[in-house]
Amino acid sequence: MSSVFGKNITVTIFGQSHSKGIGVVIDNLPAGFSIDMEQLTAFMQRRSAIDKPLSTKRKEKDEIEFLSGLVGNTTCGAPICAIIYNKDINPEDYRSFKDIPRPSHADYTAHIKYKGFQDTSGGGHFSGRLTAPLCIAGGICLQILEKYGISIHAHIKKIYDTEDISFNPAEDNRENIEKLLNNDFPVIDKQKGILMQERIRTASQQNDSLGGIIECAVNNLPAGIGEPMFDGLENNISKAVFAIPAVKGIEFGNGFDCANLKGSENNDPFYIKDSKILTRTNNHGGILGGISSGMPLIFRVVVKPAPSIGIEQESVNMTNNNSEQIKVGGRHDACIVPRAVACVEAAAAIAILDMYASYRIWE
Amino acid sequence: MSSVFGKNITVTIFGQSHSKGIGVVIDNLPAGFSIDMEQLTAFMQRRSAIDKPLSTKRKEKDEIEFLSGLVGNTTCGAPICAIIYNKDINPEDYRSFKDIPRPSHADYTAHIKYKGFQDTSGGGHFSGRLTAPLCIAGGICLQILEKYGISIHAHIKKIYDTEDISFNPAEDNRENIEKLLNNDFPVIDKQKGILMQERIRTASQQNDSLGGIIECAVNNLPAGIGEPMFDGLENNISKAVFAIPAVKGIEFGNGFDCANLKGSENNDPFYIKDSKILTRTNNHGGILGGISSGMPLIFRVVVKPAPSIGIEQESVNMTNNNSEQIKVGGRHDACIVPRAVACVEAAAAIAILDMYASYRIWE
Amino acid sequence: MSSVFGKNITVTIFGQSHSKGIGVVIDNLPAGFSIDMEQLTAFMQRRSAIDKPLSTKRKEKDEIEFLSGLVGNTTCGAPICAIIYNKDINPEDYRSFKDIPRPSHADYTAHIKYKGFQDTSGGGHFSGRLTAPLCIAGGICLQILEKYGISIHAHIKKIYDTEDISFNPAEDNRENIEKLLNNDFPVIDKQKGILMQERIRTASQQNDSLGGIIECAVNNLPAGIGEPMFDGLENNISKAVFAIPAVKGIEFGNGFDCANLKGSENNDPFYIKDSKILTRTNNHGGILGGISSGMPLIFRVVVKPAPSIGIEQESVNMTNNNSEQIKVGGRHDACIVPRAVACVEAAAAIAILDMYASYRIWE
Amino acid sequence: MSSVFGKNITVTIFGQSHSKGIGVVIDNLPAGFSIDMEQLTAFMQRRSAIDKPLSTKRKEKDEIEFLSGLVGNTTCGAPICAIIYNKDINPEDYRSFKDIPRPSHADYTAHIKYKGFQDTSGGGHFSGRLTAPLCIAGGICLQILEKYGISIHAHIKKIYDTEDISFNPAEDNRENIEKLLNNDFPVIDKQKGILMQERIRTASQQNDSLGGIIECAVNNLPAGIGEPMFDGLENNISKAVFAIPAVKGIEFGNGFDCANLKGSENNDPFYIKDSKILTRTNNHGGILGGISSGMPLIFRVVVKPAPSIGIEQESVNMTNNNSEQIKVGGRHDACIVPRAVACVEAAAAIAILDMYASYRIWE
Repeated sequence: MSSVFGKNITVTIFGQSHSKGIGVVIDNLPAGFSIDMEQLTAFMQRRSAIDKPLSTKRKEKDEIEFLSGLVGNTTCGAPICAIIYNKDINPEDYRSFKDIPRPSHADYTAHIKYKGFQDTSGGGHFSGRLTAPLCIAGGICLQILEKYGISIHAHIKKIYDTEDISFNPAEDNRENIEKLLNNDFPVIDKQKGILMQERIRTASQQNDSLGGIIECAVNNLPAGIGEPMFDGLENNISKAVFAIPAVKGIEFGNGFDCANLKGSENNDPFYIKDSKILTRTNNHGGILGGISSGMPLIFRVVVKPAPSIGIEQESVNMTNNNSEQIKVGGRHDACIVPRAVACVEAAAAIAILDMYASYRIWE
Repeated sequence: MSSVFGKNITVTIFGQSHSKGIGVVIDNLPAGFSIDMEQLTAFMQRRSAIDKPLSTKRKEKDEIEFLSGLVGNTTCGAPICAIIYNKDINPEDYRSFKDIPRPSHADYTAHIKYKGFQDTSGGGHFSGRLTAPLCIAGGICLQILEKYGISIHAHIKKIYDTEDISFNPAEDNRENIEKLLNNDFPVIDKQKGILMQERIRTASQQNDSLGGIIECAVNNLPAGIGEPMFDGLENNISKAVFAIPAVKGIEFGNGFDCANLKGSENNDPFYIKDSKILTRTNNHGGILGGISSGMPLIFRVVVKPAPSIGIEQESVNMTNNNSEQIKVGGRHDACIVPRAVACVEAAAAIAILDMYASYRIWE
Repeated sequence: MSSVFGKNITVTIFGQSHSKGIGVVIDNLPAGFSIDMEQLTAFMQRRSAIDKPLSTKRKEKDEIEFLSGLVGNTTCGAPICAIIYNKDINPEDYRSFKDIPRPSHADYTAHIKYKGFQDTSGGGHFSGRLTAPLCIAGGICLQILEKYGISIHAHIKKIYDTEDISFNPAEDNRENIEKLLNNDFPVIDKQKGILMQERIRTASQQNDSLGGIIECAVNNLPAGIGEPMFDGLENNISKAVFAIPAVKGIEFGNGFDCANLKGSENNDPFYIKDSKILTRTNNHGGILGGISSGMPLIFRVVVKPAPSIGIEQESVNMTNNNSEQIKVGGRHDACIVPRAVACVEAAAAIAILDMYASYRIWE
Repeated sequence: MSSVFGKNITVTIFGQSHSKGIGVVIDNLPAGFSIDMEQLTAFMQRRSAIDKPLSTKRKEKDEIEFLSGLVGNTTCGAPICAIIYNKDINPEDYRSFKDIPRPSHADYTAHIKYKGFQDTSGGGHFSGRLTAPLCIAGGICLQILEKYGISIHAHIKKIYDTEDISFNPAEDNRENIEKLLNNDFPVIDKQKGILMQERIRTASQQNDSLGGIIECAVNNLPAGIGEPMFDGLENNISKAVFAIPAVKGIEFGNGFDCANLKGSENNDPFYIKDSKILTRTNNHGGILGGISSGMPLIFRVVVKPAPSIGIEQESVNMTNNNSEQIKVGGRHDACIVPRAVACVEAAAAIAILDMYASYRIWE
């Protein structure tokens, strides 16, 4: 079930970079929910490359066609199928990497797994383009969560050596989120965003690429969502987020930093505010025992530098085991982190709506 | 399905800290596999507290009783059920935290989720004790993987301010693993282990606790295992590993560090050695596009300091919303990291055997 | 996942006929539900052989030991594990069929599937004894359904040439159910029950066996439960009910008889009664499009004659492919239908509670 | 997961009768399999109505567009998405049944479940049209099974009072299948087919409808496929087959008839032929303990008369609870049984390929 996610809400993603179309089937959403199509389009544009000078030259308008699941714009209970036709197709794209795999790309592992039958055009099923259907599903889930008062916002925490300010884990960050939403570039501190864009431009000129860290906050998640053991919030958010190509790590709350603290420093004391139980700090990132505590759910993911770069690299010709030098031309991004921000929100939204559905069973 | 893991190999874990017993059901292992019971016992002892001066005073011999699934010690195809009777039971343990939740423990979230009906003795279903059945399942999966040539080894990478040397990601670390296996304390560099143990002892004397980082290597995993999207190795290993209480983050390969590198620095060039395709470096940690590359699979998890500490902390009485100060007495560990090492291997083994099973379908 | 059932409520069954124990893990029941242990024991006795002159001589008291999931008798949210120790064990039972498979038993297919490693004592994992844990899970699910007003009752519709009266599909059958509950032998018409028992006694004296048909009614199921396509009530009840050994068919409503009717005869007209929408007839058996209509859900299953008989039969020695004649001695039933009645209720209860849970998500 | 089927092979179906399109996503087929498109089209035509004087006037050519998963006609390992655009759309079709549900159709239950938001045009998600994507998936699975030597053939066993000859359960029925494949109307005995067609024509003239029984044989299935308990062949074939609208029952082997036999009559003796273990009779229908025995797998399903008929029937207006008389006009079939034959093969093929995949894991 490599392309199926979820127990209650089922999301099935399909498509390759240069196949006729890409898309998603979403099952078991509540009937009677009206999708705000403008909002969905705006969400999709945060992922797409159009008018973003820093990103890929491939021009896809990413118009969504709903084949099923809606009457007008309202869910009818049947599974939604939404597709995007690939228009700017070039089946020869990256074809040259069929035999000579790009370092740190999935070319090699796909070749082994699919015994040479994989679709090599444009990275096939492993292309970042597959995050478009992820964002369709995630964008709809975000709207449904919103209806229940739950919101999800991510920003670039870091690109190379430049860091944005962090969310304050112990509060709802209204001001920070407002700033974030007002910026075209998804950071809280506009100036840091300008610096990051410079870094990306320089990397692009050097035919090189950059990675970064994305931070995501889920606000207003009621306490009690998630399960112990294998179906905790951490388990399922991770399972969803690693579907985004290039993500190589995830941490919740203060994450890897908690290794540097003593229990007395890391523990988050409970207190009462407005007759609600809160924690003074939020090193636990809103999750205790896999279950939401009612505090903001905070996590960060690291995105590796895009492997496709124009600099000469060492590889191997798989047909004859000869050494080869390759340069990757084509329409790739020097930094996929800005576009991955919406993808992280999308993956989180899918995982959280699925767990929210579980939570409703015995409520 | 909070306590069920796996698509092909299904692992179902049950029990509470002070229930009559804890255990696991494992379904769809190959018939005809002879479990080496001595090896399994030795593996369990790496997790259990017996004779470990640094850890909990609770005395459980953790004797495994196999109720089903074996004829002699050999799998018969029917699901294995293995149980451990809880013997050193004290139902009153931690009962005092029924109303006043321990900071950063699951007491509060369990109370909300289960509406006050949760088993509060000893942390109930959220107790670290539930990692014993995880280790039974993992220990058996490790033996089966071994039969296919695949091995998994973890060590403590860091406790507080003390770091062990790392696995060399680009090779099989035979020497390091030998050192690791020769040490009682699961580190490669014995001296660092002695320092870590001192740190733990000091924390214990201060009634405080420490966290740390565990590094795990899977060697000899054939290329081609794992799926794109939602069923990649990262997705499923994460889903399994976050079942270990106190794990707050996971990273693969060079993980969060890759944000500091350019693509040209982070990419791992392919080359030929003994007519095998390898990578010169292994920043990708053996996984590209969710699929194994044949290089060692390397990941690290962070374990937070145990929340139960003897130092006074602020909390709230949930029955009347009054502020309270609590100290956690009882039989807790000052540092659960050493015992979590086997758990990380166990969780990884379950996830990898499940994906290895998927891989065999169309081989 | 041969022994795992359910999407929301997960039921995992384990054990072999002569293993140390058999049992079940049940996950995701609502916390705070008090199990009526007397009622559960009474339900189990309807399946067990004690004091039933017609059935197996194996004496098992089937005492349930709850290892986990309860505080007192109340669910605490953690998975329930309930086990029954096998006491009247005879590992040599049926051992002789290891090489010479009993006709129409699973001896042969188990041998092929598990490559000779299957547990052959007493039928191993294929023994009717495994319906005991099914009944534990089902008995608890029945109690939970009852709390929501939903009841499930089955009776023997037919044994060999003797038929009980049928449930009236279009009403709630209160009188019939009362009669049924007052009979020791699970039929509505006591006289027919006496005849059936005579038939069984005769078959037993002839060292032969009999099959039969069981009819089951689910009353008070609200309209709207079930899903179209693969997760309809028919799909999931079937999937559960075929877990009972010897079941070879299932039909809903008027079932196979509808092939003899025209649409105008088979369709069930809607009408209003007490401002509720009902159907005048109930050929549809309470299910339309996989979804409950609010009318009684009626289904029937056929149970084949037990394959273990004392009459000489032709078989083959699998070690040398020689023809062999075998007679099955041992402690088998001449007719398992009476004991299967509770099993059918149990399987239905598990499937229906699971779907009822799904239904609650967006209610 | 109402529209997702399968553990290893995942089939996700979407669409409504009059939505823009209908389709299916199929995941985890083996890479490198070349689909015979002509054969697939021929299979689809057995389901579709074109040129069948007896069936619906709706004209759909059912051209399949593959959006993903193929390179040329060869599977590339990525999920296949195949869609059919609905062309002969009439959103007003059956709209009149939005308020007044057709007796024995899913109009009423869909209204309750989806709270009035269901797509009412043409039966929405409950339309028989959704069996087209089922047949796409099934048609591809049939071709893959064929590659492994396994074949599946179904025929009409009965319509109203007219019966075709049955498959001989104990042999491979080569002659019967040849006759069947030579007939346009899917029966073995051509004369009986002519009679059946007459019956249908008469029913059609009377504005009435007829149901029937379909018999299906799976030949050459190796022994050892399927699992005990919940994942037996019976469980999973049933789960798949009840996805076909109007199926109300299923039986394996001699099915409900076994209730009339004694064990000594019903048991199938083993014998040796050409050093293979076979059974002399095949009342067990090729399945013992949920696992294939190597004998032909035989099952029968009953299809109820189509509920949409032109005869006046009693119903209720759901907006005001008034009694209403309705006649169903439109483009419905008088007998859907002939078209359902391919659907039964398709559902069986999906279930069996999924279980065949499980079987390969530890082979």
